[in-house]
Amino acid sequence: MKSSKVADTLLNTVIKDRIKRPSLLNKICDPQSLINHFQNGMYLGWSGFAGTGYPKMMPIALADHVEKNQLQGKMKYNLFVGASTGAETEDRWAGLDMIDRRYPHQVGRNLRKGINSDKIRFSDEHLSIFANELQYGYYTMNKEGNKRKLDIAIVEATEITEDGDIVPGASVGILPEILQMADKVIIELNTSLPSLRGLHDMVSIPLPPHTKPFPLSRVDDRIGVDAFPCNPDKIIGIVESQAPDATTDNDPEDEVSNAIAQHIVRFLEREVGAGRLPPSLLPLQSGIGSIANAVIGGISRSPFENITVWTEVLQDTFLDFFDNGKLKFASATSLRFSPAGFNRLFSNWPNYRDKLVLRNQSISNGAELVRRLGVIALNTPVEFDIYGHVNSTCVQGSKMLNGVGGSGDFLRNSKLSIVHAPSTRPTKTDEHGITSIVPFCSHIDHPEHDIDVVVTEQGLADLRGLCPRDRARTIIEKCSHPLYKPLLLDYYERAHTKGLKTFSSHEPHMLDKAFKMYQNLEEKGTMRISSWD
Amino acid sequence: MKSSKVADTLLNTVIKDRIKRPSLLNKICDPQSLINHFQNGMYLGWSGFAGTGYPKMMPIALADHVEKNQLQGKMKYNLFVGASTGAETEDRWAGLDMIDRRYPHQVGRNLRKGINSDKIRFSDEHLSIFANELQYGYYTMNKEGNKRKLDIAIVEATEITEDGDIVPGASVGILPEILQMADKVIIELNTSLPSLRGLHDMVSIPLPPHTKPFPLSRVDDRIGVDAFPCNPDKIIGIVESQAPDATTDNDPEDEVSNAIAQHIVRFLEREVGAGRLPPSLLPLQSGIGSIANAVIGGISRSPFENITVWTEVLQDTFLDFFDNGKLKFASATSLRFSPAGFNRLFSNWPNYRDKLVLRNQSISNGAELVRRLGVIALNTPVEFDIYGHVNSTCVQGSKMLNGVGGSGDFLRNSKLSIVHAPSTRPTKTDEHGITSIVPFCSHIDHPEHDIDVVVTEQGLADLRGLCPRDRARTIIEKCSHPLYKPLLLDYYERAHTKGLKTFSSHEPHMLDKAFKMYQNLEEKGTMRISSWD
Repeated sequence: MKSSKVADTLLNTVIKDRIKRPSLLNKICDPQSLINHFQNGMYLGWSGFAGTGYPKMMPIALADHVEKNQLQGKMKYNLFVGASTGAETEDRWAGLDMIDRRYPHQVGRNLRKGINSDKIRFSDEHLSIFANELQYGYYTMNKEGNKRKLDIAIVEATEITEDGDIVPGASVGILPEILQMADKVIIELNTSLPSLRGLHDMVSIPLPPHTKPFPLSRVDDRIGVDAFPCNPDKIIGIVESQAPDATTDNDPEDEVSNAIAQHIVRFLEREVGAGRLPPSLLPLQSGIGSIANAVIGGISRSPFENITVWTEVLQDTFLDFFDNGKLKFASATSLRFSPAGFNRLFSNWPNYRDKLVLRNQSISNGAELVRRLGVIALNTPVEFDIYGHVNSTCVQGSKMLNGVGGSGDFLRNSKLSIVHAPSTRPTKTDEHGITSIVPFCSHIDHPEHDIDVVVTEQGLADLRGLCPRDRARTIIEKCSHPLYKPLLLDYYERAHTKGLKTFSSHEPHMLDKAFKMYQNLEEKGTMRISSWD
Repeated sequence: MKSSKVADTLLNTVIKDRIKRPSLLNKICDPQSLINHFQNGMYLGWSGFAGTGYPKMMPIALADHVEKNQLQGKMKYNLFVGASTGAETEDRWAGLDMIDRRYPHQVGRNLRKGINSDKIRFSDEHLSIFANELQYGYYTMNKEGNKRKLDIAIVEATEITEDGDIVPGASVGILPEILQMADKVIIELNTSLPSLRGLHDMVSIPLPPHTKPFPLSRVDDRIGVDAFPCNPDKIIGIVESQAPDATTDNDPEDEVSNAIAQHIVRFLEREVGAGRLPPSLLPLQSGIGSIANAVIGGISRSPFENITVWTEVLQDTFLDFFDNGKLKFASATSLRFSPAGFNRLFSNWPNYRDKLVLRNQSISNGAELVRRLGVIALNTPVEFDIYGHVNSTCVQGSKMLNGVGGSGDFLRNSKLSIVHAPSTRPTKTDEHGITSIVPFCSHIDHPEHDIDVVVTEQGLADLRGLCPRDRARTIIEKCSHPLYKPLLLDYYERAHTKGLKTFSSHEPHMLDKAFKMYQNLEEKGTMRISSWD
């Protein structure tokens, strides 16, 4: 397992400085020497979240091995990662038919294709509860041998401390939990990054009935350790990595996302004016993508000051927000910066170091914390309906995009839950062929009860305290695109008339017509139906 | 406001012993003398939860006043109660058109009729977060005057302490929060009940950014006070009540509910055997109704011992559970016993007193606590679908029953979330006219991610770790009624075949046919369609 020749070479490099515990130096090896530990059907855990902090060398070596030896479909794994990783690893695995089961979130073309064509058994899950369920044994119930263990964990690190503890890379995710659960551990020490010691705050969470309150009531509270222990006996190899996280540039703001951002900034200003939010707001959570970028950009250019952030993932916009002095502190589980963003971070590390912390995703997304802190949650869904139900995952009901991620963790427990989307999206034949506001969502991840505000570039609908009938009128009036407004209003009014006749007008629907727009999209390439008849 | 004649009379009764603070004795009055405080359009809060602990005298006096003076529709209120109250008060109000808006849960024939015919603007909301949202001002944003206050709170009490603090009746609900939020307070001192001092544990919860962890990690931890403070200046009257909570007998167990209970007991035994649950299980949450009763009955007759309960509402079955020595402690926000059950409780009060606590519904249902304690959640929905989405509220999509209640609080955050229902229900013309398992729920309150196990009298489907395709096959196979099994399987297989052709087989649907069974029900009185063509 250990290759002393490789070790000797590597010992001349920077890796020696990063392994502060001498007794671990003899674990250094090349990834090829570890391939024989991997058998078909194994249960693997990787570090990584939102495309950063994931292992590269070992997954790539395994993919090369499969490709070279034509083992496609013969080395398939049950793969557990906090959220998404990089295309060069996991998505390549999907292309090589190396993934049997995958939880709880993913991003990648081959992955998506595999999931939507019976090759990959994927299930999405709220990110806050995933590590718990893994530890409960819910994903390993049918495993051979110990039904509470993962076979191998592969984690990226940027330092191993004097005590042998692991300092992660640019994300935490479920790294602490998989280190605890794995029979064997492979560490990828990434020397292309500086040691990120001090960035992380990680906890070991006892399972019920032994769980205790998380003693955290401010975004900058620290409740754990900055390096996570790992039994050295479990470490079967330490591999040097110089591969950066394969991130790309952030989606730029555009006219639609800027209009949405302006609606939200004005709404927040009104909330402060009404005394329902303090002048520095409450901790912000924001998703990924151009709208999220525009919203954070908009807030950072607004008069709000001393802002705090409690979120999953930080994008480049947050660096501007720090730099203009308005963002005081940000807590997340992953830094998903562009290559330029990472450069900016690392070259000004002392400026940012005390304003950032990365936590277990059980904490960053934890129901307990999101509710206690009174987070303002901002998320982009696939679509929402006239009553405020939200689809975040399955296009036209059946086709998985990436998974529910943390949207449910935040929308359910936040003080203010806001979803934002362009009112329409294009199809091949109609630039407004898809409406984001539908009579009945083709898949529902977030029920009406979880949503306070919906926003499109057309306007903002404040749903708080409204009954479903009033919600429908408000959403259609404020948010729908003019091309769809008459159709949606007609649906609602017909359904309402029918509902009144049958003592069913609480949330009136015409179930025989509720999905008609999707049928039209399938058949004619647009959701613009001619009528409801 | 104060009627000294009435006060003199009442001072001769037991009420004097229950008001331990002499300066409050001059607030005693009859409810009629308080009617002039009530104006059309006011915002009212009542105590009460699951039909107990609610005020009777004042609501009945107001209803009498409206009836006598033909004020129907002219004295309408915005009414906020933790959950349901009694038919003689709130439902009578609904019949007299006295309710404009009502949140977040209700039970009653007139209420339901009003909600489903545009008379009452009702919105259901997760019970754990309702008091927070009330305090945030989300329900009072458009009120005249102070937009963060309720006009009048009416609460039932069983004692007023030396310090003037309020000891509630048989529920807590949102009593602490409405005492804090109300401009004026009316206390109904119920002398038909013993003083329940010591039963309650109530907290005042600071709003974000000042919220702190709830220091509670066992079901029997106490973190608050047994009597809740109320500024005496706000008390406009103390009314004596001798009216009991208008509860009825619990629904009896039957063959179907017993079969469901047996499946669940055996499942829990297997979980203990596999080491995923401790031998005394984890705290149980259970809904209301015959299945809930049968399940609790089944567990109480099983070998499990030292059981604890963390739930919303306790029914009579829990008294048996205490009496057979297997239930160690129960925490809830309401005691909803039958009249005989209450007699049993009060006549053996010393036996039960130290084994029971009632908390704010923000605590009993709190995401933080349910997740920390690792609750086993058991709930009866309206229906669930082949992928595990659950409808708990709206029949055929449009018609409100009672509201989402605490089902989402528990199913989302529990360690094990179990939903149970009879596989079919009767219609007028077909004893199996309604299937509880459908292709696509007509309303979705709980997404697939929240559900671990579904059960009918036919069997139990363990969904943990399964992708949607496998979930569908398992649910149909284990839980569906033989009359519907071929239809459901045919739907799934057709949808799957279609999904494979379009790279959409993650959670395959035929949206044009998904609701066909409901159309058939509407037109022909049964969901048994002849085919999917």
